[in-house]
Amino acid sequence: MRDLTPLLRPRSIAMIGASSDPNRGNGRAFRYLIEGGFKGPVYPINPKRPEVQGHRCWSSILELPQSVDLVILALPAEMVADSLRDCVSAGVKAAVVFASGYAETGPAGALAQDELTKIAKAGGLLLLGPNSLGAYDARSRSYMTFSSMFEEGYATGGRIGMVTQSGGWGSQARRVAVERGLSIVQWVSVGNECDVDTAEVLHSMALDTDIDVILLYLEGVKDGRKLLTALEAARCANKVVATIKVGRTLKGREAAASHTAALTGEDEVFDEVCRAFGVHRADSIEELLDVAYAAQIAKDHNRLPADNTAVILTPSGGFGVHMTDQSVLQGLSLPAPDPHAQQQLTALFPSAILHNPVDLTGQVLNQIPDFGNALQILLESETYQGAQVFVGIAGSAPALRERWYDALRQVAKKIPNKWLGLSIMAPADVITRYEAAGFTVFEDTSRLIRAHAALVRANRAFRRTTIEPQTFDVTLPAGRFTETGAKTLLRSIGIGSPREALCKDAQHAAAFARTLGKPVVVKVVSAQIPHKTEVGGVVLGLSQPQEVIRAVEGLQARVNEHRPDAVVEGYLVAEMIDEGMDCLLGLRHDPDYGPVIVFGAGGVMTEWLRDFSMRLAPIDSDSARNMINETKISAALQGWRGSAPLDLPALVDAICCISHLGSVLGDCDIEINPLRVLPEGRGVLALDALITKASP
Amino acid sequence: MRDLTPLLRPRSIAMIGASSDPNRGNGRAFRYLIEGGFKGPVYPINPKRPEVQGHRCWSSILELPQSVDLVILALPAEMVADSLRDCVSAGVKAAVVFASGYAETGPAGALAQDELTKIAKAGGLLLLGPNSLGAYDARSRSYMTFSSMFEEGYATGGRIGMVTQSGGWGSQARRVAVERGLSIVQWVSVGNECDVDTAEVLHSMALDTDIDVILLYLEGVKDGRKLLTALEAARCANKVVATIKVGRTLKGREAAASHTAALTGEDEVFDEVCRAFGVHRADSIEELLDVAYAAQIAKDHNRLPADNTAVILTPSGGFGVHMTDQSVLQGLSLPAPDPHAQQQLTALFPSAILHNPVDLTGQVLNQIPDFGNALQILLESETYQGAQVFVGIAGSAPALRERWYDALRQVAKKIPNKWLGLSIMAPADVITRYEAAGFTVFEDTSRLIRAHAALVRANRAFRRTTIEPQTFDVTLPAGRFTETGAKTLLRSIGIGSPREALCKDAQHAAAFARTLGKPVVVKVVSAQIPHKTEVGGVVLGLSQPQEVIRAVEGLQARVNEHRPDAVVEGYLVAEMIDEGMDCLLGLRHDPDYGPVIVFGAGGVMTEWLRDFSMRLAPIDSDSARNMINETKISAALQGWRGSAPLDLPALVDAICCISHLGSVLGDCDIEINPLRVLPEGRGVLALDALITKASP
Repeated sequence: MRDLTPLLRPRSIAMIGASSDPNRGNGRAFRYLIEGGFKGPVYPINPKRPEVQGHRCWSSILELPQSVDLVILALPAEMVADSLRDCVSAGVKAAVVFASGYAETGPAGALAQDELTKIAKAGGLLLLGPNSLGAYDARSRSYMTFSSMFEEGYATGGRIGMVTQSGGWGSQARRVAVERGLSIVQWVSVGNECDVDTAEVLHSMALDTDIDVILLYLEGVKDGRKLLTALEAARCANKVVATIKVGRTLKGREAAASHTAALTGEDEVFDEVCRAFGVHRADSIEELLDVAYAAQIAKDHNRLPADNTAVILTPSGGFGVHMTDQSVLQGLSLPAPDPHAQQQLTALFPSAILHNPVDLTGQVLNQIPDFGNALQILLESETYQGAQVFVGIAGSAPALRERWYDALRQVAKKIPNKWLGLSIMAPADVITRYEAAGFTVFEDTSRLIRAHAALVRANRAFRRTTIEPQTFDVTLPAGRFTETGAKTLLRSIGIGSPREALCKDAQHAAAFARTLGKPVVVKVVSAQIPHKTEVGGVVLGLSQPQEVIRAVEGLQARVNEHRPDAVVEGYLVAEMIDEGMDCLLGLRHDPDYGPVIVFGAGGVMTEWLRDFSMRLAPIDSDSARNMINETKISAALQGWRGSAPLDLPALVDAICCISHLGSVLGDCDIEINPLRVLPEGRGVLALDALITKASP
Repeated sequence: MRDLTPLLRPRSIAMIGASSDPNRGNGRAFRYLIEGGFKGPVYPINPKRPEVQGHRCWSSILELPQSVDLVILALPAEMVADSLRDCVSAGVKAAVVFASGYAETGPAGALAQDELTKIAKAGGLLLLGPNSLGAYDARSRSYMTFSSMFEEGYATGGRIGMVTQSGGWGSQARRVAVERGLSIVQWVSVGNECDVDTAEVLHSMALDTDIDVILLYLEGVKDGRKLLTALEAARCANKVVATIKVGRTLKGREAAASHTAALTGEDEVFDEVCRAFGVHRADSIEELLDVAYAAQIAKDHNRLPADNTAVILTPSGGFGVHMTDQSVLQGLSLPAPDPHAQQQLTALFPSAILHNPVDLTGQVLNQIPDFGNALQILLESETYQGAQVFVGIAGSAPALRERWYDALRQVAKKIPNKWLGLSIMAPADVITRYEAAGFTVFEDTSRLIRAHAALVRANRAFRRTTIEPQTFDVTLPAGRFTETGAKTLLRSIGIGSPREALCKDAQHAAAFARTLGKPVVVKVVSAQIPHKTEVGGVVLGLSQPQEVIRAVEGLQARVNEHRPDAVVEGYLVAEMIDEGMDCLLGLRHDPDYGPVIVFGAGGVMTEWLRDFSMRLAPIDSDSARNMINETKISAALQGWRGSAPLDLPALVDAICCISHLGSVLGDCDIEINPLRVLPEGRGVLALDALITKASP
């Protein structure tokens, strides 16, 4: 990833196409540079004018008295390429292109855009756009946009960065943020991403020590691996990332495709990306900014929740119950107070209900300092890493306001590092004081809890260790696209299969079946027939030699009929396995994000039940256990109606093992279906397996 | 249901326990009556004082110069019962009891509460409470509460009613509503519901022609049938009902149980209640009030959406895509504009993207009146019953504000009845003018869309016809608790079973099996063994007479061993059915809400897959089809991997038919598991069925 400083924090700016009307388009953009107080020289360039808005104007970038870091190209599309070449000649390091009319309009526009990319790459110039609404950095006061976003004042500080693939969306979201008192220190509209892209900007923000929180609006991801690299940088730097990514629905993906040149990948995989890096995926600007707000306070005060434990403290039973529901649904853990804390609380509030929620009852209004003491008692114990304090309307009485504040501020002073959430009705200035004391304040408890849970997940991701891919001392076997080839690979990494043999003809098959001494299954093996059931290529439950012979003859006939082109390697004769349960286990190369491990219901259920979980690979055994638990079949795997529980440890090992296969498989996918999970202690068996070329 | 007018809109009030300090508890409550301007006489009663807050005080309810409609009992719990008896003697029609210390504290409190119930019932008095925060009605100006909720002013009007099982929650929600500009005309804290309960208040609001929207906070439902009656009254009167019901999670239900005396029923069934009556179940006060706000505007302007169609109109591609996702997730339908509309739109905006979302592009800013024209064109077509208009930040420029308003107001004038949603950034007074014109305005598009969808569901419920329960000319058969009895009942209503016979012993069983001419299953039949598999009471796949004999002998042995007490009626011998797929179909008596029809995955999958849908019974065939489609097994029922599709029409008939069985079953449940759905045209068969006593 490149250093984007010349683009995002330039020391000097030229603007080609600066115009006179300070209230319209390019004239407004020029005004923002001057009026906004950019900390460096600004050169308007316009061959038609001697001056622009009272500033001496230059006729060409090549004429400037110095070489500038950045040029804003405020020109029609047809003039951009030539001008960009001049910039390269003049040693310009970065350029912003406002013009639209490129890849978003069709093939001709895409060609014109490719030309810009070539010029930028060849000239070593960082190019933002085209079709970009611009960017700003509040520290360098580089307000580079033709939108009207600074009419109500310039951005001045803050620790939040925002990257957006839609300028319109980004302008609106920034405005809503400002109205909520959130400051965006750096804002980048990436436009068509012909050179600098979302991942690169995200990476730059991840390394920017002034930025704590990064907000992303995504419509499509051009280079998923690059995005993963940027997200990993953000994770390692403990930056809270929240995103809105459209395309949750098919209709949404279609709309995105008609709106930009970007395509959107499979949506579920993006959810796994978010999980892996602790990114909060929001459904609305409000939710996105809720997380940004909570993250900012938690980072400022070093109060990111260390785990998902929380105590709910309230004077209202009703709210306690409601908050309990929301906390559980958001994945928070609500253990009861420990006996020592209970004892102390009872001394303060004899009628309190000391489960979790801790309901101190309306008695609180007569004992406001004790409410603070109760909170302190609870947070002093190791049981909780966070608190959700409900005061609500009780905080609104002017007579009690300062007493509440004193009581709660004391707790914040005495309890460092733990997360403090507060729902209270109070004037804005009082809220500000709570925030300065370290409280995250929401009037709405559901939003409070959602933001708390988002920080728990972010911090969990910050703390996890990176899982290094294992390298295997195995290679893809010959005949890898057949069942026998796939099983050879699996056996070499410790995943067994039933006793079986590849037989040349019916006689051999019958002879081998006899040696097994139990019913067998016979399957045709051919690289041209990956899906055997589609040609009737599997026959089950054969006990007698004569049955085996007839089965092989039947397979031959059906293959001749349906797939006369197929080269048959032979007939796989395998013992029937009666016990256990079938699953699916696979490693799939997602075109955007690389290897993804998939686990779920196997056999015929795979198709209609769609009961599966996935993760970016590789994973560790904790993640493998979580994957199993997320599926519905997990209940069956643990044994039901008194049936024996199955060998979950072996299944966990198999999932982890397959998740590390990426380096071996290269551009191939593997699917084991069914993977038979045997009763406890007896392992797993690949009953069938398939290696296929990954789709491009 | 009783007429609650004397309680909710009294003409005269006495307050026993009125006290002097106008800023504390009972003194404040008295002040609210006087200062709030109650439209009738108010009598303070306190034997210790000649006057209260300047008003002549009476020593007893029996001394008053007139009989009053309502008495507020602001007394400690131990004095309430005697005082209530006096009220009955004095001919009082309604009473409000503030005191706590009743059922919520344990068995002794419950006894004291029962006494209040008896006095009220015997005296024909409407009793609200105990443990109630009170109630108010803004029309009669009866502000009857000891909370401090009117310190910022009295409620004066509005068309929203609120019923709450938690006074604390209700106070807070009301306050938030007021701050959002929503007026609650009637507010009732039902407390412990020892007499007047939530359902009765809801019913009263349903019949109140001044109330259009009803908000409910529920922790538990004491009488589910009564609640259904009240909800049906609200539905028939086209009142939009929205609720928060806690207890979505087990932990939430536990917290609710420790907070109030109320128990909460099975949560999924409550979701079905909401579906049946078009009630919106919200997860936060914010969401609840969003729906109330949208409902109020839609009702005021006669713009409840007639169906779920919507057009998204935007100048920003990014927002269009995001809104598409949210609309689809909320169940809205986004058809493309019809060709005629497309033609007209292209004439106005040649570069517009005319799918749905309709993206008119940034060009809109130069053609604001045409944006209105475009909206009008879209809403004049039959394609859409609602519009989601995004203007966003573009609406905030002071210079353009009036032009946006003119353009959009014109559309509202010309297009009656259709739902108009708007996301715009503008000052509060401008928003108010949009609302007056008929627009529902949210800055956040996700909240806009959620509220829209809530109104679609409400109006769908208003329009549906009530499904009358069918009466069957059948009775519960003798031996109804056995498989054969259950199947007899099913056959009598047209649901068949395999060819089978109840055989007395092994010889008979073998003889009958021979007549079937195909493999059979043999099952033990005994009223004492409802779950046959638990004793190994089912043997499958018997082809030879000798196998049948051995199977029956084996059954006898196992029953003798495991259930020596069981009276065995015989052995059911049935043909094996090879084709089709197994489901579960049942009718279950929910203790709160009555008969519930359940459909889902059958056989062993029933337990671990938990793949089912339910509805309040009876239902029509549309609902039955929706039930099937909600399950994962529906994909399998429609045929997968080229297997034949199954007989869905017969399954739909069976679901409807069973859903009407409530009257026949009385206090029994029925479960058909498996119900085998055969290939198309061949119907369904009950392979096993069971009638059980409903749990109390």
